[in-house]
Amino acid sequence: MSNYELCPKFEAAMQLLGKRWMGLIISQLLEGPQRFGEMESSLPISGKLLSERLKELEKWDIVVRNVYPEMPVRIEYELTERGRAMEPIIKAIQFWAENSMDKDLQIDEIN
Amino acid sequence: MSNYELCPKFEAAMQLLGKRWMGLIISQLLEGPQRFGEMESSLPISGKLLSERLKELEKWDIVVRNVYPEMPVRIEYELTERGRAMEPIIKAIQFWAENSMDKDLQIDEIN
Repeated sequence: MSNYELCPKFEAAMQLLGKRWMGLIISQLLEGPQRFGEMESSLPISGKLLSERLKELEKWDIVVRNVYPEMPVRIEYELTERGRAMEPIIKAIQFWAENSMDKDLQIDEIN
Repeated sequence: MSNYELCPKFEAAMQLLGKRWMGLIISQLLEGPQRFGEMESSLPISGKLLSERLKELEKWDIVVRNVYPEMPVRIEYELTERGRAMEPIIKAIQFWAENSMDKDLQIDEIN
């Protein structure tokens, strides 16, 4: 497939991943299913934003929300097959960021 | 390195790549140095936007602009070492986009 033909899907993937915290949320879920509270306490983002991002990831069939009818009810977020297929992307970005980015580069510099 | 520590560099990389056409421009340059006109005619974006993106990539030391003092002067854009180190990321995203994205998914759906 040429670059040009691939372009819409490639660009969509890039833009989805490029949204702030998307990669970090996926990266977190690569460790296994998690409850909302666990994710909220281990990620440096607000519950409101985390909830929005998870809804977007559900919409794109990257994350699934499992509800277990226990007492109290247990809700866990888990990567779908399509989500788990992102592992090589996340690992490649982590490797590049660790090895090729300047130590002093901060997110705020990229706008 | 934990997710949390990695977060600023990881997020910066994600956001840089998530900007529209960044990935496609890098992908194009992975094939070798190119003149502006060549890139402009093979990418579906305006010269103005291509020029802006190339300036951003130069700023981040991902692309270098080489000026050859010939007649007429020849200007080529080329990936730096840091830029070439992005190849595994680009390939991983291409693979995922080709194999895991819905055929009907368009960029406009992601906002």
